[in-house]
Amino acid sequence: MSKGQETREAILTEATTLAAKVGLTGMTIGQLAAHTGMSKSGLYAHFASKEALQIQILRHTRERFVDRVIRPALSAPRGIARLRTLFDGWLAWSEAFEDGGCLFVAACSELDDRPGPVRDALVRDELDWLELIATVTAAAVSEGQLRADTDVHQVAYELHALTLAHQHASRMLQDPRAPERVHRAFDSIIARTSA
Amino acid sequence: MSKGQETREAILTEATTLAAKVGLTGMTIGQLAAHTGMSKSGLYAHFASKEALQIQILRHTRERFVDRVIRPALSAPRGIARLRTLFDGWLAWSEAFEDGGCLFVAACSELDDRPGPVRDALVRDELDWLELIATVTAAAVSEGQLRADTDVHQVAYELHALTLAHQHASRMLQDPRAPERVHRAFDSIIARTSA
Repeated sequence: MSKGQETREAILTEATTLAAKVGLTGMTIGQLAAHTGMSKSGLYAHFASKEALQIQILRHTRERFVDRVIRPALSAPRGIARLRTLFDGWLAWSEAFEDGGCLFVAACSELDDRPGPVRDALVRDELDWLELIATVTAAAVSEGQLRADTDVHQVAYELHALTLAHQHASRMLQDPRAPERVHRAFDSIIARTSA
Repeated sequence: MSKGQETREAILTEATTLAAKVGLTGMTIGQLAAHTGMSKSGLYAHFASKEALQIQILRHTRERFVDRVIRPALSAPRGIARLRTLFDGWLAWSEAFEDGGCLFVAACSELDDRPGPVRDALVRDELDWLELIATVTAAAVSEGQLRADTDVHQVAYELHALTLAHQHASRMLQDPRAPERVHRAFDSIIARTSA
């Protein structure tokens, strides 16, 4: 990495932390300047616009997501074990955010009615995530662990529903039973589709 | 209602529409003044603070929710029919919002890491809603339609998960299969717990 790229990545790390706290669209360049100790014009030298910065924050977060959630799951044995590793990896990921929970979940709520390139980028990320859950589920089918007639996209939809519910139960309601609820719901989906 | 109360309710109707678009915390008194054609000081005569206004918006939305979702469900026969009416009522409710979907869902995402009286009011609303789903589920158990060992709070958690997923699939992903996905998931939960 060049010095310029290094600076840019360091800014993105700070920007991602800030965006997780105040929202991807709520964050201002002024706040980021105060947070990083850089000038606003210094920041604009790295990111042409607030929108460009938001898209880079999503890319940066996606890379961390691949490292922390997807890569460990792909090291687990194909089948239900991998699906469980992926799901538990997501739970740990969302809990690692100090404020506001998973940046993607919060950004979906912010951007669902704001058309534009940032929303488009986020939709692609969300579709990739759902597709990945479906692919890992399909491997459990081809391993003979889940029934051959399993609708893997329906399973992905339902598992994704649980990630949203978990963030609500643990962050918003601060329900001490949130981990138990989400694991029981996961187990029910697996039990229903087990071969 | 006195003239003052009428004005107040009319402001709240406008404020609720605006909050659904720009967010409960994102909305400013200035925006509401522009939206209603009132002066900021005129608005402050009705609501002592932005926080007081936010709490009143939640109350106003809750009253509409009771009228549109809860009351029709309580007119349906006790049991699975009532649970389905309640669930379908929620889907219709969330779809009726022009932008941003259900105000409660959006507000949870905004407020989950912002302690204070507005968050406290919203948590009470969310707990009431989950408790109501559990109660309607319990009636389906006592009618002998769902199994006696059904954990009604787990069912409420899972049905609530589907409301969040539906908003994501229909609003964010604009998935044409969203209604089919959510109804199939609802049916799976009912099938699993059926007597």
